[in-house]
Amino acid sequence: MSDSTAWAIDPDRALPADPATRTIARELYNAVSALPIVSMHGHVEAEVFVDNEFFGDPAELLVIPDHYLVRMLVSQGYSPAELGVANRQDGALAERDARLIWRRFCENWKLFRGTPTRYWLEHELAVVFETPLQPSAENADVLFDKLSALLQTEAFRPRSILDRFNVEILATTDSALSDLSAHRKLSDALGPGRIVPTFRPDSLLHIDHSRWQDEIRILSEVSGVEVADYGSFLAALRQRRRAFVDAGARATDHGHLLADTTPLPPAEAQRIFAAATRGEVSAEEAQAFSGSMLYEMARMSVEDGLVMQLHPGVLRNHCHSVYDTYGPDKGFDIPVGVEFTRSLRPLLESFGMNSAFRFIAFTTDETVYSRELAPLAGCYPAMKLGAPWWFLDSPEQMRRFRESAVETAGFYNTSGFVDDTRALASIPARHDLSRRIDAGYLARLVAEGRLGMAEAVETAVDLTYNLPLQSYAARG
Amino acid sequence: MSDSTAWAIDPDRALPADPATRTIARELYNAVSALPIVSMHGHVEAEVFVDNEFFGDPAELLVIPDHYLVRMLVSQGYSPAELGVANRQDGALAERDARLIWRRFCENWKLFRGTPTRYWLEHELAVVFETPLQPSAENADVLFDKLSALLQTEAFRPRSILDRFNVEILATTDSALSDLSAHRKLSDALGPGRIVPTFRPDSLLHIDHSRWQDEIRILSEVSGVEVADYGSFLAALRQRRRAFVDAGARATDHGHLLADTTPLPPAEAQRIFAAATRGEVSAEEAQAFSGSMLYEMARMSVEDGLVMQLHPGVLRNHCHSVYDTYGPDKGFDIPVGVEFTRSLRPLLESFGMNSAFRFIAFTTDETVYSRELAPLAGCYPAMKLGAPWWFLDSPEQMRRFRESAVETAGFYNTSGFVDDTRALASIPARHDLSRRIDAGYLARLVAEGRLGMAEAVETAVDLTYNLPLQSYAARG
Amino acid sequence: MSDSTAWAIDPDRALPADPATRTIARELYNAVSALPIVSMHGHVEAEVFVDNEFFGDPAELLVIPDHYLVRMLVSQGYSPAELGVANRQDGALAERDARLIWRRFCENWKLFRGTPTRYWLEHELAVVFETPLQPSAENADVLFDKLSALLQTEAFRPRSILDRFNVEILATTDSALSDLSAHRKLSDALGPGRIVPTFRPDSLLHIDHSRWQDEIRILSEVSGVEVADYGSFLAALRQRRRAFVDAGARATDHGHLLADTTPLPPAEAQRIFAAATRGEVSAEEAQAFSGSMLYEMARMSVEDGLVMQLHPGVLRNHCHSVYDTYGPDKGFDIPVGVEFTRSLRPLLESFGMNSAFRFIAFTTDETVYSRELAPLAGCYPAMKLGAPWWFLDSPEQMRRFRESAVETAGFYNTSGFVDDTRALASIPARHDLSRRIDAGYLARLVAEGRLGMAEAVETAVDLTYNLPLQSYAARG
Repeated sequence: MSDSTAWAIDPDRALPADPATRTIARELYNAVSALPIVSMHGHVEAEVFVDNEFFGDPAELLVIPDHYLVRMLVSQGYSPAELGVANRQDGALAERDARLIWRRFCENWKLFRGTPTRYWLEHELAVVFETPLQPSAENADVLFDKLSALLQTEAFRPRSILDRFNVEILATTDSALSDLSAHRKLSDALGPGRIVPTFRPDSLLHIDHSRWQDEIRILSEVSGVEVADYGSFLAALRQRRRAFVDAGARATDHGHLLADTTPLPPAEAQRIFAAATRGEVSAEEAQAFSGSMLYEMARMSVEDGLVMQLHPGVLRNHCHSVYDTYGPDKGFDIPVGVEFTRSLRPLLESFGMNSAFRFIAFTTDETVYSRELAPLAGCYPAMKLGAPWWFLDSPEQMRRFRESAVETAGFYNTSGFVDDTRALASIPARHDLSRRIDAGYLARLVAEGRLGMAEAVETAVDLTYNLPLQSYAARG
Repeated sequence: MSDSTAWAIDPDRALPADPATRTIARELYNAVSALPIVSMHGHVEAEVFVDNEFFGDPAELLVIPDHYLVRMLVSQGYSPAELGVANRQDGALAERDARLIWRRFCENWKLFRGTPTRYWLEHELAVVFETPLQPSAENADVLFDKLSALLQTEAFRPRSILDRFNVEILATTDSALSDLSAHRKLSDALGPGRIVPTFRPDSLLHIDHSRWQDEIRILSEVSGVEVADYGSFLAALRQRRRAFVDAGARATDHGHLLADTTPLPPAEAQRIFAAATRGEVSAEEAQAFSGSMLYEMARMSVEDGLVMQLHPGVLRNHCHSVYDTYGPDKGFDIPVGVEFTRSLRPLLESFGMNSAFRFIAFTTDETVYSRELAPLAGCYPAMKLGAPWWFLDSPEQMRRFRESAVETAGFYNTSGFVDDTRALASIPARHDLSRRIDAGYLARLVAEGRLGMAEAVETAVDLTYNLPLQSYAARG
Repeated sequence: MSDSTAWAIDPDRALPADPATRTIARELYNAVSALPIVSMHGHVEAEVFVDNEFFGDPAELLVIPDHYLVRMLVSQGYSPAELGVANRQDGALAERDARLIWRRFCENWKLFRGTPTRYWLEHELAVVFETPLQPSAENADVLFDKLSALLQTEAFRPRSILDRFNVEILATTDSALSDLSAHRKLSDALGPGRIVPTFRPDSLLHIDHSRWQDEIRILSEVSGVEVADYGSFLAALRQRRRAFVDAGARATDHGHLLADTTPLPPAEAQRIFAAATRGEVSAEEAQAFSGSMLYEMARMSVEDGLVMQLHPGVLRNHCHSVYDTYGPDKGFDIPVGVEFTRSLRPLLESFGMNSAFRFIAFTTDETVYSRELAPLAGCYPAMKLGAPWWFLDSPEQMRRFRESAVETAGFYNTSGFVDDTRALASIPARHDLSRRIDAGYLARLVAEGRLGMAEAVETAVDLTYNLPLQSYAARG
């Protein structure tokens, strides 16, 4: 990119700088750049496509809901409220002038240099909005007006965007308590299998959560199973999983602090569950229960074929005052080190050799790629190594992921890219970047005489299209 | 490499892609490519050279015994039995059709893209067997027949291979209970010092091992020391070490889960040893005893001059069902994080400044290179940092090893390359790859004005030839 | 560099090898190479500039006090005494022949290949001393004579060096017990703000230190506050901090083994403090107290505006015998893994959102950049991520720092370079190297279409000059 007010996005962006390698990388990228997007793990709400409403303005679409972007501006002194983020105590405290919020972002464009946020936004402005202006104090208003106008056009309504982006399949993430009515409507409107739900039971498995007892009550209602004890709890979960399968779900998703998967003896699980219903569970018991439930989720995946995804290792809501004022998902979630080798052993020993099971592990700790996750994915047939996630979904990290994991796991024990985003407009930017980084890595293998060109092309296509489809295909 | 059925191996493979750096790297590689192989840590059995039998067929030589290769095919759904791996319960369950096993491997060649297995096998096929065909469904039979025929020629008998590979010295790894008769025969046949044993007492030091009491009985027999208590245990170990020294051994080797080297008070060691003889030792006691024995091994190394090698951090037999069915070393050994700074302190404080001691530490956890191992090797004169091992014996990892370790440890506190392999045919491929990666790293230093060319040539020769000889030279 | 006896230092050293990227990097480097040096964290003693004495000889200046250099020679078999390091028991044991010490170093020049020590010394010889000879057995004497002669010239007296190096501001590190008289003299002689003190209270906060009770007595004297209990201890510390502020200090500095910042209840802090005054404190209590004191230091920084620096994770004096014989800071300090996410939480939750607070965290463990420190610095406005420190102050590590931290923290949540050195002559080499590595990283972003050239130039200037000034500016 350049920094004049008018720039043309570099067609070779994120490809290796070395000219010999770049020529190869460009050829590989060209072989995959137009392939459909397979988005098997995302966070756009299904309702967005049901309602199919026009988006409001660029602040509402691109700034306020993007925790990457908000946290960076907060790190330099803005309050979330000044960026339009709702204050839970007093909604009136949030800035409501969208143009002012947008201006605050544009004036601080330099803070994003070298970050994936910058990379994605450049792609969005240049390619999605065809408005190649660099955000700046000078450009803020003209950008606001241009983007606002575009967002009121038919081409920028959610379903239109999905078509323009060539999204073949999009998996949302849904509460285990969802009645899935949005997905039923989408299946009717768009045909089955275009937008599919993902079963996310975190709020039910973390039993020391303040709202857990409420959640259990809702579980009883929505499942039709009166949850009175551990046994009926499992039965209700089975019912919900079945409802998700019927609604087209391919996978479950699990956010845990640790990767522990040690099963509790049933009597102990029952005892802890009962204590939780009385609100008398300790943090240690709750942690043990959540690990045991991962084991149970694997068992159920063997039964119903749902692919199991695990996203551990993020300490949520690091700053209580930010959480109390603004709620979760505001950029104050911080990774911690996570042990996988011992933690996943119970699950993998029981189900890892089972052809009816598929398990995909993610990490925000790059040090475990070569030490733990690639060796595990490199032997257990049920396990795939997930794409670089969250903090690791960036050019340098995606490159290091390949450099760290492929030598032990190979390409074919990795899951293919997932975008993991609630930012609809960034989906093509994220997939495009992944394709470029993979092309660059494969190009280096070719340039260093470690892979043939035809093989590299085949691999690039597999990584982009075939592997995510295969990794999230129903099992059993 | 290319992917047509006929390809010529790239003479510049694994050298940096950047043309300016590659030119320098090629010159450095040419300065070392023909140097003799010094293989100071390997796992080929001495008996292979005593017997000097023809190898059978390519499946028997290249597929069935290679746990890197088997685990990758297992990770994609084959059972070990389908690949010819013997089932411990029922030998008849293993596939016996060598041609079929070979075909299964060839059909799945693409799984190995980007892995060192692929790199080594290409070298073996093109350079060792002079049969430059890419494995594939189409090539499987013709490759099987060509390789099978070659394996029946004089040039491919074990001793001939050793000469063709220009192996100057080869260290095997031998049970502390070995009578060393094979090594005596080899010394007679090949002259002393060509093939030397290495003292590996793991089965005696891990006292909660199921066969430990049997091992102790054999130790009494082979050492001539009646092992009745901790004192006689140490005496018997001293005797075995002496026998190894007499048979030409240069080093000991120790595989432990942790790097702990804390000495126990003798009375406590005696108490735990006595408990173990009654089969009443706890896992914690066994762990403490094994750490204490590392300290004792260091003390004995000061006495007898054997170089001490430590390979910690691999959790063996991660999957019980695979272990129960197929035994150890089937690709289900998974690294765990290991702490070195505190763990090695007792050993290094006592012996690390002693010029009669040499200690070489290995890791499968790349994160400790810059944080712990390079700083330790960069101050204690007794300590060298071992070559990248097992999962780390690969192009990207060998490159990162240099990038992580050299700035703090220098080149001259690293041990030089060891191949660590039981795959005889892969020895030249592994050494050749190491020479290429080191040439590439040195070339970058030259290209970036950080090292002179004549110095780089000298360093490349030292890394390839002089450092392993010096690192494993008798001390004292 | 070349390795003939006469060489010219490479003007493009440490810039990327790829010609396209190098051209860009050279332009970026040229934009910052002549900027003044802002050295906000160093260890040159203030007295050196007060006394402004001629340095003695090259051994005294470049070898004996440099623990990087001494430890490398020790790792290859020299004793510290043979390199002139004073023996605490018997001063006569240290080698006194400076020419011989210098020769020992020169003869072993090859040990430093690939290390930053080599890089810095080449810069010093070629640029600072304008004596571009590679150290060697042959060159040892002529180098010794040339350097010795130069050191007796006016241009090489400490204050002259400071001017020649274009040092705009230099922060020393000073005991909390310092009477700051040296700094008062320097303020008078050089004007205020050229050389400023830094408040380092480690010896007071680690209450199980053998000399702690003596330190407390001195604290009473120098502060004028009779330290009788925890409350008066805090009052005395406040007094000292105020004295440092008055003497121009910008920052505090804290060396701790862990990063724990958990505050103790005041009564518990009082209890432990009282136990320490009786010499009855346990290691666990001392560790808890030191963590609590980091929290108190943060609270005081909010009050007085001193920037708080934390340098955790180094296990000091790993080898007792070296420590007993030669004392601290002899190259036997070894990093350990450090946890930051949970450890810093108490401090950051209380003060991290406070605009009156500035906190800069350093690490010798590169694995925490992407996992913990960049995410923390990327959200908390009070926190900056410090420059690569100690073992990480090297070309490969500085490059990896940017590759690991910038994508999450951005450039503007990093603190800018600090040299952290007691080696006065190496200051320009270290800053110059940092500028080159940052230029190389920025150049790659430009070459890969991820940043515009004008932005890269602005960023390079900010990293070199503006960010360290802003990061260490008084707060509040």
